[in-house]
Amino acid sequence: MAGASGYAGALAARLLWRHPDFELVAVTSRSDAGRRLDDLYPHHRVPLVLDAFDVDELGQIDAAVVAYPHGAAAEAVAQLHERGIRVIDLSADFRLRDVAVYNEWYREHPAPGLIEEAVYGLPELYRDQLREADIVACPGCFPTAAILGLAPLAPYIDDVVIDAKTGVSGAGRAATENTHFVSVDENVKPYGVGHHRHMPEIDQELAAAGAKDLVATFTPHLLPLDQGELLSCYVKLNADVDVDVAALYEERYADEPFVELVTAPPGVRDVRETNFCRIAVHVDGRTGKVFVFAAIDNLWKGTASQAVQCLNIMFGLPETEGIL
Amino acid sequence: MAGASGYAGALAARLLWRHPDFELVAVTSRSDAGRRLDDLYPHHRVPLVLDAFDVDELGQIDAAVVAYPHGAAAEAVAQLHERGIRVIDLSADFRLRDVAVYNEWYREHPAPGLIEEAVYGLPELYRDQLREADIVACPGCFPTAAILGLAPLAPYIDDVVIDAKTGVSGAGRAATENTHFVSVDENVKPYGVGHHRHMPEIDQELAAAGAKDLVATFTPHLLPLDQGELLSCYVKLNADVDVDVAALYEERYADEPFVELVTAPPGVRDVRETNFCRIAVHVDGRTGKVFVFAAIDNLWKGTASQAVQCLNIMFGLPETEGIL
Amino acid sequence: MAGASGYAGALAARLLWRHPDFELVAVTSRSDAGRRLDDLYPHHRVPLVLDAFDVDELGQIDAAVVAYPHGAAAEAVAQLHERGIRVIDLSADFRLRDVAVYNEWYREHPAPGLIEEAVYGLPELYRDQLREADIVACPGCFPTAAILGLAPLAPYIDDVVIDAKTGVSGAGRAATENTHFVSVDENVKPYGVGHHRHMPEIDQELAAAGAKDLVATFTPHLLPLDQGELLSCYVKLNADVDVDVAALYEERYADEPFVELVTAPPGVRDVRETNFCRIAVHVDGRTGKVFVFAAIDNLWKGTASQAVQCLNIMFGLPETEGIL
Amino acid sequence: MAGASGYAGALAARLLWRHPDFELVAVTSRSDAGRRLDDLYPHHRVPLVLDAFDVDELGQIDAAVVAYPHGAAAEAVAQLHERGIRVIDLSADFRLRDVAVYNEWYREHPAPGLIEEAVYGLPELYRDQLREADIVACPGCFPTAAILGLAPLAPYIDDVVIDAKTGVSGAGRAATENTHFVSVDENVKPYGVGHHRHMPEIDQELAAAGAKDLVATFTPHLLPLDQGELLSCYVKLNADVDVDVAALYEERYADEPFVELVTAPPGVRDVRETNFCRIAVHVDGRTGKVFVFAAIDNLWKGTASQAVQCLNIMFGLPETEGIL
Repeated sequence: MAGASGYAGALAARLLWRHPDFELVAVTSRSDAGRRLDDLYPHHRVPLVLDAFDVDELGQIDAAVVAYPHGAAAEAVAQLHERGIRVIDLSADFRLRDVAVYNEWYREHPAPGLIEEAVYGLPELYRDQLREADIVACPGCFPTAAILGLAPLAPYIDDVVIDAKTGVSGAGRAATENTHFVSVDENVKPYGVGHHRHMPEIDQELAAAGAKDLVATFTPHLLPLDQGELLSCYVKLNADVDVDVAALYEERYADEPFVELVTAPPGVRDVRETNFCRIAVHVDGRTGKVFVFAAIDNLWKGTASQAVQCLNIMFGLPETEGIL
Repeated sequence: MAGASGYAGALAARLLWRHPDFELVAVTSRSDAGRRLDDLYPHHRVPLVLDAFDVDELGQIDAAVVAYPHGAAAEAVAQLHERGIRVIDLSADFRLRDVAVYNEWYREHPAPGLIEEAVYGLPELYRDQLREADIVACPGCFPTAAILGLAPLAPYIDDVVIDAKTGVSGAGRAATENTHFVSVDENVKPYGVGHHRHMPEIDQELAAAGAKDLVATFTPHLLPLDQGELLSCYVKLNADVDVDVAALYEERYADEPFVELVTAPPGVRDVRETNFCRIAVHVDGRTGKVFVFAAIDNLWKGTASQAVQCLNIMFGLPETEGIL
Repeated sequence: MAGASGYAGALAARLLWRHPDFELVAVTSRSDAGRRLDDLYPHHRVPLVLDAFDVDELGQIDAAVVAYPHGAAAEAVAQLHERGIRVIDLSADFRLRDVAVYNEWYREHPAPGLIEEAVYGLPELYRDQLREADIVACPGCFPTAAILGLAPLAPYIDDVVIDAKTGVSGAGRAATENTHFVSVDENVKPYGVGHHRHMPEIDQELAAAGAKDLVATFTPHLLPLDQGELLSCYVKLNADVDVDVAALYEERYADEPFVELVTAPPGVRDVRETNFCRIAVHVDGRTGKVFVFAAIDNLWKGTASQAVQCLNIMFGLPETEGIL
Repeated sequence: MAGASGYAGALAARLLWRHPDFELVAVTSRSDAGRRLDDLYPHHRVPLVLDAFDVDELGQIDAAVVAYPHGAAAEAVAQLHERGIRVIDLSADFRLRDVAVYNEWYREHPAPGLIEEAVYGLPELYRDQLREADIVACPGCFPTAAILGLAPLAPYIDDVVIDAKTGVSGAGRAATENTHFVSVDENVKPYGVGHHRHMPEIDQELAAAGAKDLVATFTPHLLPLDQGELLSCYVKLNADVDVDVAALYEERYADEPFVELVTAPPGVRDVRETNFCRIAVHVDGRTGKVFVFAAIDNLWKGTASQAVQCLNIMFGLPETEGIL
C-alpha cells in the first residue's frame, strides 16, 4: 500500500488490514514516513508504521495499491510492474487511453508504454478484463458515479448535463483556504467550472459504453459534508429513440452486488461508508428528459473500496469479500 | 405583519422592526398567538407579542405583509385589500397569472378576482408596476434566483437545466422527518423530482422575459446548511443566436443595487443574510452552453428582505433602506 | 428485536443481522409495523419487514433485544422473561436498583419485582454477572462514558463536574423543534440543566465503583453532529489521596478490548461507528484536578453495539464478535 | 485598521466601514497587501484595497484598530501611540498587567512600558477608564464570556470549572490540519488542555472583580460550527456565603445594553452576528453549585464588535452605534 497517508490510501489500508484473504505487509508515505498510521487516522485503527517507498525492500508480494498523486503514481506503478507485482493505481495516470488527452489535461505522461496494459477498474463494466489485469486504473470518483449512472443509456444519449455535488474529502487532505472549515461550512459553490480533469474520463467511458460524439456537460460543487457524492444527470435522448428506460437499468444491473436501483431519490447518507452505488431513474413527462441520480461514497466506491473490489476479482475471491 | 411565526414572516418582522421609515405595529400568528416573538426567535430580538389575526382590530395601517400558507394567504389578502390596505403577500397565491395553472398546482383559488391586481414582486423586472401596486405577490425563492439568473438570456434560450441547491430553512419551521437534523446532516438528495410548485412560476416569468415555448428542467436538492440557495443553470442557446452574453448581463444589471455580477463562482456564504443576488456567467467552450450560477439567501432576497425592497419601492423610499 | 424503528433499535438490528453467530428472526415496531426496515433506514440494509410485537408469535428464540421507551420496555421485558427468553433491555427500566429512585425520576415502575434480576450491561464492570444474566439493563449513553471514564478514580473522588457534549441522534428519531436542523445547526446549548435522568444512574454506578457520598455535577449539551458523545470530567480528588492516576487507568483497562487509553485529547470522530470508548487522563498542575475526557459513539458503545457486546458475553462468544 | 485580512480584523473593517460616525480610511495587511478586501471576504463588502502598514502614510487619523498577531501588535501599537493616535489592540499584548506573566505565556514583551497605559476593553467593567483611554487591550474571546458570566459572583467563588465550546473561526484563518473541514466536521474535542493562553487573563480579571486566590479550571473544545462560543461555568461558592444570586446578576447588568439575562439555556445561535452576551444562571439544588452559561459570538462580542463598542465609548458616541 503505497501512499497510505492520504484519505483514500489510508482507507484502502484499513480495508486491506481487516480483509480476510489479504495480508497487508507494508504501508508507505512520502510525507509521513516514520509515523504510525493510527496516529494520523485513529478511526482506521491500522497499527502500522509508515515507511518510505522502496520497491527493493518490499519482499515477496502479490499486489500493490498505489495512492500517489498523478505523475508520481506512474513511476511507482512502472517499478512495481517491472518486478511482476500486480498493481492497483488510484491515480489518474492510467485511466485515459489516449496519451495525448492525458498530456493535455495533466502533464507529459511518465510511462506511456504501460497505458495499454491497464484495465479501467470499474467492475460493472470491465469485470472480465480485471481477472487477468496486471495494472488496474481505478476510476475517478465522479466518473465512477457518472458511468454507473449513465452506461445503460449511453447509446441513446443526445446530450447530458451532469451536476455533481461532493463532500470535502474529495479535495484531499491538504489544508487550504478551500478546505478550511469556515470556507465550507454553510456554503455551497461550483468549482472547476468548464475545466475539470474528470471530464475527458467521463467522455471516454461513455463513448466506450456506446455514446456517439458526446461531450458531457459536467460541473462539480463543494458541499459542507465530509464524504459522499451525488450526481444529478439530466439526459436528452436521441430524437428517434424509443426505449424502456427502467428495463434497461434493471437488466444491466440485475446481478450487480453493489448497484442498487431505487425509486425514491437517493441521498449520500444511504451509501455512506459503503461500496454501493445507489441509482434512481426518472422519466420526466414535462420535459421529455430522463433524470438519473447516482449516489456513492467518494472515498469508498469512488476510490478505496472499489479498489478492493477489483483486487477481489483479480485474485478470484468473492467480489464482496471484506467490503460488505 | 400577518404570519410572523414562520421563518420568513419572523425575518420580515425583524427587518421592519428596525426599518428607519416603517413602524411595525402588530404581528400575528395562527399557531402561536400569545407568545412573544423573541421567545420563538431570540436572535431576531423583536419584543412583540403575537396576536391572532383580526382585520378589524388593525387600526390605521398603510400596508400589511402576509406570510400565511397558500390558500389561507389569499383570504387574508382579500380582507386587507378590501379595507384599502396595500398588501405584500409572501405566499404563492397571487404569483401565477393563469388561475387554471394555480388550480392545477395548488388547489381551487380562493380569490381569483384579485389575481390581475397583483404585481409580481421582483423589483429588477417589475419596478415601475410596483410603485403603484396594491397587491404584491412576492416570488418564490427558487424563481427569484432563476429569473434573475436567466432573464437577460431568456429570449435566446432553447433549453435550460436548472439544478438547485437549498438550505433547510426553505422547508419551513415544521418539524418533520425531512427536517430532522439526522436526516439532513452529511446528506444531500433531490426532492420534488419532476413536480415542484415553483416550476410553473419559473416558466411563466421566463416567458414574460422573452423565452419562447420553454419548459425549464428544474430539480431542487436539500443540503446540510440552514440558509442559502445556489442555482446552477445550464443553458443551450437557440442555434442561430450570436450574442455577447457578458454584455447582456452587464447592461441589464448595471444599475441594480442588489445584483452582483462576479467572475469567480459564487457561494451562498457570499450572500448570507443579505438581499443580494450574486451571479456568475460562464460561456463554455467545450459544450457551447452558457452556465449561469446564481446565489441568494432564500429567507432574505428569496423572501423577506425582497418583500421589504418592494415596500420601499411602493412607498417611494430609497430602495436599499433597512436592508443594506 | 423489539422496537427496531428507533435509531438504537435499528442499529442493533443491523449489527445482529450481520452477526456471524446470531440469527435475527424478527424485528418489531409499535409505530411502523408493516414497513420494511431498509425503507426506514436504507444505510442499515436490513431487508426485514417490521411486525407488531406479539410474544406468542416469536417461536423458539434464545434472546431478545428490547428498544422500547421507558415503561413500555418493562412490560415487554416481563413477558419475554416469563417465557424463559433472555432479554437485553436498552431502556432505563432496569438500570436503577432502587425502585424509589426510578419512580421519582421516571414514573411508577411497571415490574419492580424484576429489578433485582437485572444486571447492568457495562461489560467492563459487570462481565462475570453478565455471563449468567437473564435480564440485562443496558446503560444510558452518558453513564456509559461517565462510568468508564471515572470508575478507576471513583474511590478517590471528592467532587466531579461532568460536562457532556452529544450529537443529535441521542435525542431520538422524533421530529421536534429541538431536533429540527435549523435549531441545531451552528448552535450549541445546554439542556436538562439541573435535572437529567442519567444523573441518578451515574451516581449509582460511581458509588458501586467505590465513590463515597458523591453527587456528580452533570450537564449535557446538544451539538451540531449526528453521532458521538464527549464527556469532559473535572475531578477534585480527596485531599489526602496520593495515587498514580495513570497507573490506575492502565491497570484497570489493560485487557479491555474496547477501552482505548490515549494521551492526545480524544475526539468523537475517533470512535465514530465503533464500540470503543477512548479515554485521556490529564493530571493538572495548575489546579490540582484530574481531567478525564471520554469519547464514545452514543448509538454504538452508548447503546446498540454495547448490547451486542453483552450478548456475546451472555452466550459465551468472543466478546468482539460482530462489533469490531 | 491594521491587520484587516484576518477574520476579526476583516469584521472590524466591515463594522467601521458602515459605521455612521467613523470613517474607515485605510486597511492594511502583512500577508495580502494589494488585494481587495471584498475579494478575500465577499460577504463583508468592503471595497478597499489592502495596503502595507506604514505609520508614516496614515495621514491624520484619530484612532487605529490593530489586529496583528501577538508581538507584532505591540510594535504597531507603540508606533501609533507615539504619533498620538488612540489605539484599539485586538491582540493579547496589553491584556496582562504583569509583564512577567506575559513573558511566561507568550514571549518577551516588545513594549512593556506601555502596559500600564492600556485599559482592558471590556466596557461592562471598565467603561469609565475607556472614555479617556489611549490604548485599549481588547479581551480575548473566552475571557470576555468568562468575565461577563462570572464577575457578579467573583467575590464569592471558592472554585470554578469553565468548560468552553467554540466554533472554528476562533482558530483563525490559517489553513491547518486542525481547521480542515474533515477534521472538524462531526467531531468535538478538547484542546489546550492544561495550558491555554486565556487562563492567566481569566484569572487576572476575576481577581480584579473580587475573586480571592482563584485559579479557574478552564478547557476549551472545538466544535463543528463557524462562529459562536458557549461557556458552561460550574461554580462552588465559598462555604459561608449566602447571596441572592439572581439579584446579583440583575443588579449588575440592569443597564447594560449588550448583556441579556435569560432563564432558558442560551445557545450560540441566539447571539450569532451580534454584540450580545447572553447569560443564564442556575442555582443547583442537587449539588449546591451555581451554573452559569454565557454565550457570545467570538468574532463579534468576543473581538470585533466589542472593539467598536470601545471606540464608541472612547469618542463619546452612543455605545450601541453601528453594532445594534
